[in-house]
Amino acid sequence: MDFELKILGSSSATPSFDRHHTAQLLAIGNQLNLIDCGEGTQMQLMRYKVKHQRICNIFISHLHGDHYFGLPGLLSTMHLQQRTASLNLFGPKGLAEILSLQFKYAGTQLPYKINFHEVDTTVSRKIFEDKTITVHTLPMQHRINCCGYLFKEKQKPRHLLKSKLPAFLTPPQLVRLKWGEDVLDEAGEVLVRNADVTTNPKHSRSYAYCSDTKYKEDILPLIKGVDLLYHESTFLSDMTQRADYTFHSTAQQAATLALKAQVKRLLIGHFSARYKDLTPLLAEAQAVFPNTNLAVEGKTINVLE
Amino acid sequence: MDFELKILGSSSATPSFDRHHTAQLLAIGNQLNLIDCGEGTQMQLMRYKVKHQRICNIFISHLHGDHYFGLPGLLSTMHLQQRTASLNLFGPKGLAEILSLQFKYAGTQLPYKINFHEVDTTVSRKIFEDKTITVHTLPMQHRINCCGYLFKEKQKPRHLLKSKLPAFLTPPQLVRLKWGEDVLDEAGEVLVRNADVTTNPKHSRSYAYCSDTKYKEDILPLIKGVDLLYHESTFLSDMTQRADYTFHSTAQQAATLALKAQVKRLLIGHFSARYKDLTPLLAEAQAVFPNTNLAVEGKTINVLE
Repeated sequence: MDFELKILGSSSATPSFDRHHTAQLLAIGNQLNLIDCGEGTQMQLMRYKVKHQRICNIFISHLHGDHYFGLPGLLSTMHLQQRTASLNLFGPKGLAEILSLQFKYAGTQLPYKINFHEVDTTVSRKIFEDKTITVHTLPMQHRINCCGYLFKEKQKPRHLLKSKLPAFLTPPQLVRLKWGEDVLDEAGEVLVRNADVTTNPKHSRSYAYCSDTKYKEDILPLIKGVDLLYHESTFLSDMTQRADYTFHSTAQQAATLALKAQVKRLLIGHFSARYKDLTPLLAEAQAVFPNTNLAVEGKTINVLE
Repeated sequence: MDFELKILGSSSATPSFDRHHTAQLLAIGNQLNLIDCGEGTQMQLMRYKVKHQRICNIFISHLHGDHYFGLPGLLSTMHLQQRTASLNLFGPKGLAEILSLQFKYAGTQLPYKINFHEVDTTVSRKIFEDKTITVHTLPMQHRINCCGYLFKEKQKPRHLLKSKLPAFLTPPQLVRLKWGEDVLDEAGEVLVRNADVTTNPKHSRSYAYCSDTKYKEDILPLIKGVDLLYHESTFLSDMTQRADYTFHSTAQQAATLALKAQVKRLLIGHFSARYKDLTPLLAEAQAVFPNTNLAVEGKTINVLE
């Protein structure tokens, strides 16, 4: 199954001609999750030939415009294109009020349902769960209410070794073996040891999205060991003071967090418009955490099982 | 002095990959007027190397997203780039409320003043005047409150024929001659006839922006003889019924209005995304009103004096 991240934009607040504001698509199987939705996201979806009707869930980190000013337009286009499937929308207090006001003055009656979930940006909570994944909020430290999101695949079933399975096992017993249990006889004695007839399940993948925020070590336990960490890196470290003052991070800080959290891979983005050339940001991060990439538009990162 | 219109976008509500939502720039001398501001307008301004700090006045026709969803982002970027000059913003009821709510949740305190002018979209009123131009609203007939805008240069001074001017004329008398008066002696008799020493002033140019609307003949007296008329042409005439139902116009209707209003030149836009090739729309309009052009992005129309 796919677990694939596509970058649609990675510019910080002041836009840059060749970089759009923040938006990312996380495809998990057939489910498309949109993470933030800066201005122009619907045009970026067209550019990369993504059918927006496939988006099931939208997660907004905070109400600075560079993270959501594309949302009313995208929702309106879904309306014009006769979407009927309901949509989950996660975001901080204020988002539903703003959208309602815009739709009111536009005279818009959406033909699909938006299930709006107001998130508490100050704590880590499970906000979404289906048969495949869970999503938790990650509290950020920014100038206004802001949270990241942690996407985790649920534990997958163990592999059954067909050649080693006794013929007498019933379907319910096979299911129990898949989920790690032994098979017991009526007296409660082990009849078939799980370890003898199964191997480990495929890896459950995880993606942590952290934007916008000051360097913040208290999220380390929450993002520990994730397969892929996106962390904002608005500045180079010669602007640490400005990063601190504006509640943003440097590339070095993002990499330090990745190192301490022992993540597998780091992706940096939300670049200040002052950096035309992004290689110094990459170099600064890689000096601390070598497995770092730039979140440039159009880039796709496939997280393997 | 320039009187130049630049098209930044001309797509109707459903966006099309290679066409942005409606936005136009009218440069009159050094003054930049932005007319509507669809999503992505700030990126289009960058594309065409227009300094948004030069924009003095913004005119929003109505609160369908394809005409203003780029406005909060543009105003935020002006904020981030430390604009201090005040800005006039004209638009229907609701616009100020929406922007205020967005800025409230973003924690934004603008460093410049927005002079918001709520326009009555049901009547034609003078809403702006400076030493060079006047701007009037043009009532449109759309699904929600909507108005167009009529930009007119004021009457210009007559040319003084230096070779024919008597030497005794004082500066105040010369000013009166420029504005069409004769010079009188103390008894009130004509001393210098205006027609003998002046020639006609340069032409005062005009531009009428009409979007979005049903075909609507009652605006004919308001737009009569304008140098340039922009009129929405969402559909071809085989979709007149749909145009009527959605309160839009066809290319043929736009051209009919141009013909009846005896305008000098017609510009059609706000094309439905169903038309990849715009030449049938142009052909349909030109069959009625030959001096028609398409409002394609990047196009600049210079209205001569």
